[in-house]
Amino acid sequence: MAGGGGGGFLAISVVSLLNYVIAKPSAGTDIVLDEKALTTHRIDSLNILLYTFLLILTVVTIWIFKYRRARYLHETGLAVIYGLIVGAILRYSGDNTSLSHMRVVAATGEGYKENVPPDTLWFKYAYANSSQNRTYAYTFKGEIPETLETEIVQKATFDPEIFFNILLPPIIFSAGYSLKRKHFFKNLGAIFTFAFLGTTISTFVVGGIVHGFLYLVGSSMTFIDSLLFGALISATDPVTILAIFSDLHVDVNLYALVFGESVLNDAVAIVLTSAIESYGGTSGGFETSAFFLAIVNFLWIFSMSFIIGSVMGCLTAILTKFTRLKDFPLLEAALFVLMSYSTFLMAEAADLTGIVAVLFCGICQAHYTYNNLSTESRINTKAIFELLNFLSENFIFSYIGVSMFTFAHHKWDVSFICIAFIAIIIGRFMNIYPLSFLLNIGRQPKIPVNFMNMLFFSGLRGAIAFGLAIRSTNSDARKSILTTTSLIVIVTVILCGGLTTQVLSWLGIPVDVNDDETHHLNQFQPIRNGPGAEEGGETATDSNKFEKAWLLRIWSQFDVRYMKPFLTNSRPTLLDTTPLCCAPLARLLTTTEQLTQGHNPLNDDMLDDTLIGFGGVRTSIDSSRQNVTKPVYDGDLGLGSAGSVATRVSVAGSRGQDL
Amino acid sequence: MAGGGGGGFLAISVVSLLNYVIAKPSAGTDIVLDEKALTTHRIDSLNILLYTFLLILTVVTIWIFKYRRARYLHETGLAVIYGLIVGAILRYSGDNTSLSHMRVVAATGEGYKENVPPDTLWFKYAYANSSQNRTYAYTFKGEIPETLETEIVQKATFDPEIFFNILLPPIIFSAGYSLKRKHFFKNLGAIFTFAFLGTTISTFVVGGIVHGFLYLVGSSMTFIDSLLFGALISATDPVTILAIFSDLHVDVNLYALVFGESVLNDAVAIVLTSAIESYGGTSGGFETSAFFLAIVNFLWIFSMSFIIGSVMGCLTAILTKFTRLKDFPLLEAALFVLMSYSTFLMAEAADLTGIVAVLFCGICQAHYTYNNLSTESRINTKAIFELLNFLSENFIFSYIGVSMFTFAHHKWDVSFICIAFIAIIIGRFMNIYPLSFLLNIGRQPKIPVNFMNMLFFSGLRGAIAFGLAIRSTNSDARKSILTTTSLIVIVTVILCGGLTTQVLSWLGIPVDVNDDETHHLNQFQPIRNGPGAEEGGETATDSNKFEKAWLLRIWSQFDVRYMKPFLTNSRPTLLDTTPLCCAPLARLLTTTEQLTQGHNPLNDDMLDDTLIGFGGVRTSIDSSRQNVTKPVYDGDLGLGSAGSVATRVSVAGSRGQDL
Repeated sequence: MAGGGGGGFLAISVVSLLNYVIAKPSAGTDIVLDEKALTTHRIDSLNILLYTFLLILTVVTIWIFKYRRARYLHETGLAVIYGLIVGAILRYSGDNTSLSHMRVVAATGEGYKENVPPDTLWFKYAYANSSQNRTYAYTFKGEIPETLETEIVQKATFDPEIFFNILLPPIIFSAGYSLKRKHFFKNLGAIFTFAFLGTTISTFVVGGIVHGFLYLVGSSMTFIDSLLFGALISATDPVTILAIFSDLHVDVNLYALVFGESVLNDAVAIVLTSAIESYGGTSGGFETSAFFLAIVNFLWIFSMSFIIGSVMGCLTAILTKFTRLKDFPLLEAALFVLMSYSTFLMAEAADLTGIVAVLFCGICQAHYTYNNLSTESRINTKAIFELLNFLSENFIFSYIGVSMFTFAHHKWDVSFICIAFIAIIIGRFMNIYPLSFLLNIGRQPKIPVNFMNMLFFSGLRGAIAFGLAIRSTNSDARKSILTTTSLIVIVTVILCGGLTTQVLSWLGIPVDVNDDETHHLNQFQPIRNGPGAEEGGETATDSNKFEKAWLLRIWSQFDVRYMKPFLTNSRPTLLDTTPLCCAPLARLLTTTEQLTQGHNPLNDDMLDDTLIGFGGVRTSIDSSRQNVTKPVYDGDLGLGSAGSVATRVSVAGSRGQDL
Repeated sequence: MAGGGGGGFLAISVVSLLNYVIAKPSAGTDIVLDEKALTTHRIDSLNILLYTFLLILTVVTIWIFKYRRARYLHETGLAVIYGLIVGAILRYSGDNTSLSHMRVVAATGEGYKENVPPDTLWFKYAYANSSQNRTYAYTFKGEIPETLETEIVQKATFDPEIFFNILLPPIIFSAGYSLKRKHFFKNLGAIFTFAFLGTTISTFVVGGIVHGFLYLVGSSMTFIDSLLFGALISATDPVTILAIFSDLHVDVNLYALVFGESVLNDAVAIVLTSAIESYGGTSGGFETSAFFLAIVNFLWIFSMSFIIGSVMGCLTAILTKFTRLKDFPLLEAALFVLMSYSTFLMAEAADLTGIVAVLFCGICQAHYTYNNLSTESRINTKAIFELLNFLSENFIFSYIGVSMFTFAHHKWDVSFICIAFIAIIIGRFMNIYPLSFLLNIGRQPKIPVNFMNMLFFSGLRGAIAFGLAIRSTNSDARKSILTTTSLIVIVTVILCGGLTTQVLSWLGIPVDVNDDETHHLNQFQPIRNGPGAEEGGETATDSNKFEKAWLLRIWSQFDVRYMKPFLTNSRPTLLDTTPLCCAPLARLLTTTEQLTQGHNPLNDDMLDDTLIGFGGVRTSIDSSRQNVTKPVYDGDLGLGSAGSVATRVSVAGSRGQDL
């Protein structure tokens, strides 16, 4: 394979360059510190270069695969494999220059008496060949690694902070921004059930099995550690599966279920993990009061994060509506990006969950702010988040591959690894099947068995699970958790990712389905075969009424009547929807633009039915197969949904028909 | 001012949030390390949040200014001012929690004997209230600061590595990618003279004056340090001035001169700085051999960086030409970004200058690769680099403001600051006027005196000067240099930036000039008045012949005949331009697309005469004043330059008419 060969060659040249750089002799003795800084800079550059090369390689190889219509390996799988190769080369290459270290003890008369290791050490260093004495500061890094780290390996393993603060937010925001909201909300009941109840079930099942087994084996892992593993490994990853789904135009409802579940369960898993961690902080064992405290904690974190995200989204909508930022597309796009990113940071700084906040912020931005943006900004924000999403994702998967070999805190515990694989399969099983059967009792367009099988199979693990695991490696148990999680991610991404196309056809899941067609006629009805065939077209209209619980219906009405008129430049205005007594206020909140514009379907929530992206589909690399020459500004303005828009805008008739 | 008030309020709330977060009580004693990591994460998030808020504030305030047509303060000036305010609040706010530190000494029997302080310290920490002993690693940070740092202040001052590796590349690449190449190459002689000769003159004049004065005063600063200051302060910043220029539609030749000079002189200043640094490394004084070595070093770094940049640009062109990556716009855009970024990293890793490499890479990408991209990618790459450029720039200027108060290594040396201000004015004078008069001897469309005055006035200092200064603060001299540089940047950006519009009208420089009109008819002839009025329209055609030196003419011919047919999908193909004997090779290097396409002016080097961006102009925030409703994909495809394209494509007649 051309890509593979090139990869090996590139990797080797990067590594030899690294060795060369580090081995470079240093000059005189006085500017030794400048030299040191220069070397650090050189290694930093090389380190980023390494990942950049890995990504270039991945991009080119994906292209070759796509060109040849080979679907047996997805880009994330490729990124992991290239990462593993380069990681192995880095680890076992000739370089043996390990970081120099020196054992130190507290100076006599030192008055530091706190119960935490100090933030910095001040170390008076006596230069060997001169009488110079200088005091240098050293900052806290963590427990010393068991094996000696070489400089490259240490550098190739970067700070989990970067991972969480820089790489994850665009991925999650992108997910929210490109959400197919109509289908998402139609399946909201099922998605919430899987995400909240299912993830909790999975957490306890996995945690219980792992703990039970390790207890029998006589491992030292506490119940809290097992539960923590259960929680973080329950975060499934949408990336790989969904790329293939949109590539193959799989049934939209299946898409919505898989997407909704995996995005929301990331959030649930993160919150569960932090709840369990803080629960573990208060006691090592199990106490009822602490347990309820953890539940309250969970609800608090989730709801507050949700609120921050939504409020920031609405704030952006207000800012873009009531200023004429639209006249300056660059400023507008900058504000959009900055507001969205600050949502993530605010939630993290307030000890909540940035992921949840940024997800809902993305949904609000798509639902409200998008309406107020200029045409340029609509195209550009889409393109930017698409690209950021693509790069971040593949970077993370490369990194997971590389770190498998270079990270210093791995701990291989074979029995734990084996039981973990068994546990996650059982956990996934206990999540999907019982809940699906339960849902099918009340749900009119039932979830057919082949969809259940596909949902079960879609339980790939990815970035979030890895990110949660690498966050803390202070104890042996945490180190084993990291190693096992990395391994599970790599195996599921390569194996399940590679088999998805096969499995889809084995299960007889309809592909190449037109969205609207599926939606109106064949909802949940497999085209080829499948046990759900009896519930067909005639129930589709009833189902709408059933699916929308009263809460959702009320919200939908409130949204159309007040939120959209208030937050966007679309019709109807607040003047039309509020009672006469509020007219002065309503006038104040209605812009001239909103009043003067004719009814332009383009301005109405055009994202509802369409996807965002380079060429129209979220992971749209392949969408251009259909419309290579069709430019982006034509393809995704959702002109096709004008009919549904009309329904929505006539307030009286909008009773939840299209949220 | 609404923005100012809001700014103060926001800043104060962020700071109080910071204090709250840090003051948060910690839980039990066992999970103290997890707690510590959590606090670090919280502070990291808050720190980024701080800058995000600053940027949001800047964006909103700029909008208000633009909306009210107020031109007395540019966005970079605003960013600096907001940064200063927040920096002052951070510094003098109630928070006094300084970082804890502990003095340590080498353990007995420690065998470390190298002449550099060790990379890590291994410190066995005995917990106060338990019998636990754990060994922690501490990494090298640098010399201890003179004042105690608080945690917020330390965090708000981030690593110069991030500055150089993450923030600068997009700015410089953007400059190259959006270069108005036609006007740039027409004025190449003058630009090179100012950039190479002028920057060198400025370096030595500033260095000499500063050193002479400080020697009289009795300061300890060495000649090398003075020269270093001279070099780094000679890097002028294009951002602020050019934003105003394109806003006002200033004469394109003046634009080209200012732009070309400031972009290239950044590169020259960087290479000069590193040459002087390495020269200083070999000896403290002045030696002839070392001096020549420094010159060779300079030439080597500059030419190798240039080669790396161009080669990587051409490589991207080849990759996009010979693969059908075009069918997958997302992959294409990702590859484009990755290749460009890796250019920077490669040069840095090889101890060359990434800035020079990425600048020329940007020029090549615009000249060749842009032709091969899909329509989506053309729009998207422009939008992405525009936005990155905008965000990076304003972030840097905010940071310069904040760091004025928070950076621990400032050293205020009043006499140095005063003489530095005088020296840079003299240095700029010695650069612009003598060289302009010299150039005017040979040059046909002479540089009028008001243009010289404007060039003199355009000597703002910015990101590069600051970046070079903050890179090393190991000695007292370097600390004074940093402080003085920061101050010069702040003063010039706010003062000169604010006065630009005024000065333009005082000098009678034509504004609101149509590009082509200026170019063909009024080249270098001021519309209102000015001493250059006698050289007018009739010499414009001769000037072309004169301006293009033979080397440039040969290159231009080679480019049209071989480089463009080889690297892009445009006509003519290599089959048309190479002799018959090379036909098989030429056929191999010609794609089907290239052969089958009709002569489409859209595919020909459409960047030549047009700018890249949100709405069509580089810093195009204001361009939409003219074409608010005109979408980006219409505005900047350069349809207007079809005529000049036709000239260029007929090879025989293209003798340097339009490069």
